Amino acid sequence: MAEEKIIGIDLGGTTVKFAILTTQGEIQQKWSIQTNILDEGSHIVPDIVESINHRLNLYNMQAEDFIGIGMGTPGSVDRKKGTVIGAYNLNWKTTQPVKEQIEKGTGIPFTLDNDANVAALGERWKGAGDNEPDVVFITLGTGVGGGIVMEGDLLHGAAGCAGEIGHITVDPDGFECTCGKKGCLETIVSATGIVRVARKLSEEYAGASELKQLLDSGEEVTSKDVFELAEEEDQLAMMVVDNICYYLGLACGNIGNLLNPSSLILGGGVSAAGEFLRSKVVAYFKQFTFPQVTESTRIKLAQLGNDAGIIGAASLALKLEE
Amino acid sequence: MAEEKIIGIDLGGTTVKFAILTTQGEIQQKWSIQTNILDEGSHIVPDIVESINHRLNLYNMQAEDFIGIGMGTPGSVDRKKGTVIGAYNLNWKTTQPVKEQIEKGTGIPFTLDNDANVAALGERWKGAGDNEPDVVFITLGTGVGGGIVMEGDLLHGAAGCAGEIGHITVDPDGFECTCGKKGCLETIVSATGIVRVARKLSEEYAGASELKQLLDSGEEVTSKDVFELAEEEDQLAMMVVDNICYYLGLACGNIGNLLNPSSLILGGGVSAAGEFLRSKVVAYFKQFTFPQVTESTRIKLAQLGNDAGIIGAASLALKLEE
Repeated sequence: MAEEKIIGIDLGGTTVKFAILTTQGEIQQKWSIQTNILDEGSHIVPDIVESINHRLNLYNMQAEDFIGIGMGTPGSVDRKKGTVIGAYNLNWKTTQPVKEQIEKGTGIPFTLDNDANVAALGERWKGAGDNEPDVVFITLGTGVGGGIVMEGDLLHGAAGCAGEIGHITVDPDGFECTCGKKGCLETIVSATGIVRVARKLSEEYAGASELKQLLDSGEEVTSKDVFELAEEEDQLAMMVVDNICYYLGLACGNIGNLLNPSSLILGGGVSAAGEFLRSKVVAYFKQFTFPQVTESTRIKLAQLGNDAGIIGAASLALKLEE
Repeated sequence: MAEEKIIGIDLGGTTVKFAILTTQGEIQQKWSIQTNILDEGSHIVPDIVESINHRLNLYNMQAEDFIGIGMGTPGSVDRKKGTVIGAYNLNWKTTQPVKEQIEKGTGIPFTLDNDANVAALGERWKGAGDNEPDVVFITLGTGVGGGIVMEGDLLHGAAGCAGEIGHITVDPDGFECTCGKKGCLETIVSATGIVRVARKLSEEYAGASELKQLLDSGEEVTSKDVFELAEEEDQLAMMVVDNICYYLGLACGNIGNLLNPSSLILGGGVSAAGEFLRSKVVAYFKQFTFPQVTESTRIKLAQLGNDAGIIGAASLALKLEE
């Protein structure tokens, strides 16, 4: 009898990442292709089908060797129909019948979910989440997103918006957000948010600071620069990091008070600041949680990096068996 | 073949409420007994067993007619072991083997959960929740509690603290809470919180107000008085109601942004203020949610009143079949 395997796909605006995994979540093969977003993204799904078929051929594998394919995608997902709409970084403006096309092209059952949810599944299964039933994943990147697994299930909500951690209101009188409201977590702790906070605090700051000099001289400053300068004890940079950790700790605290997950995992580019970031978030998390939550919910750093997406996507395929 | 039924028990510090229901959630018999908390609450479980056996005898029913018994209880519940500890209003200071005693005494399978979770299950199943998969229930009483059902499952969290909505931090510099931190929702929107807000705003208020007169003259003022005076357009009372609805709207907004339930149900004594309260909370909820959540998550008033507990408790017994 053939060993059963699963395929994970992480569809992004620049590359499509693929992996073949065992049902235990071990990656056996991994490859990627460029995302061709020309012609309204109409080449994307055919390219995915061709790449999978090519690889199976190369590895001398058949469709029957697989339980299924799971994919994480940007945009709005209709999980029942297996379609995606409004993925603007893929040029997908109209409804894309992804499941139908991939199942027809590969002969393998297919399922999908949005990219933030899929990364949460990956970190929960094989990363910092220790495969516990209750895990929340926060991705701190250009934007702030997330995914929530509770009682072993990914949460979706009435309109698929569960896990939109970036739009928690942490400062009712704060910065305006692209979503239309004010003071969203994303306006403060995303990569662009951190620079925004730096500019704001710099205006009021009068002391010596390399960060202030960089900002004042019109240099391009990134969130990475802010963290590096803070580690070198630049006073303004330390104020900025403290400010963003306060709001991230408040948001994490309220997620803890509401859901009490065993792990609250910080991932995405900003989390590269590592323990320097985590320890400061933990300090505010303690301030904003009641004792049983302070003791039972742990703030952790993500462990899988870019692999979270393909691993979590593949884990979706395991549900096809149930 | 016997028609299958379920029993729901709502255990409180003053009374124990019982009901026999169909598996469709229709109440067929309902009764209650006083809670005897003497002798460290050691009479409570024997009284429950005796009352059930007496009623089954009265209605000419057998243990075999029932799928199971579900109970909602104060205190900390160990669902696997079927025990309760730390229910101080029952005088239960040590671990109580409730499941073991009730199953032995009645011959009917037994399961339990905490009272706020059980009320959430009731409102979701037969009340304002329309039996949708994603429903959050907030109880506004002496304290503020709640229960969260997502993807059809009650959420518990790592240490059983999921749904502790009263301890969401809504005002980081606000009132001190009994839990040890500051600015918890409960310090503002519980029955006692509302009076606390009234006293605070009264100090700064200089205009004419019956509420201010009552407070200043040392009269006992309740949250009900505050709402009634606000409906009569007492200026201070209106400010108090606006203030508490702002924080309740902020908390509801962040629950919406994080979980996107189809219904967010307001219950408990304070919710007796009805549409006057709900409409003001909705206005702030809209301000604090992003568009897809504003459109898909509805703020509703609880519909079952005191029956939410027995109905939700009984629904726990349906899970015994699975």
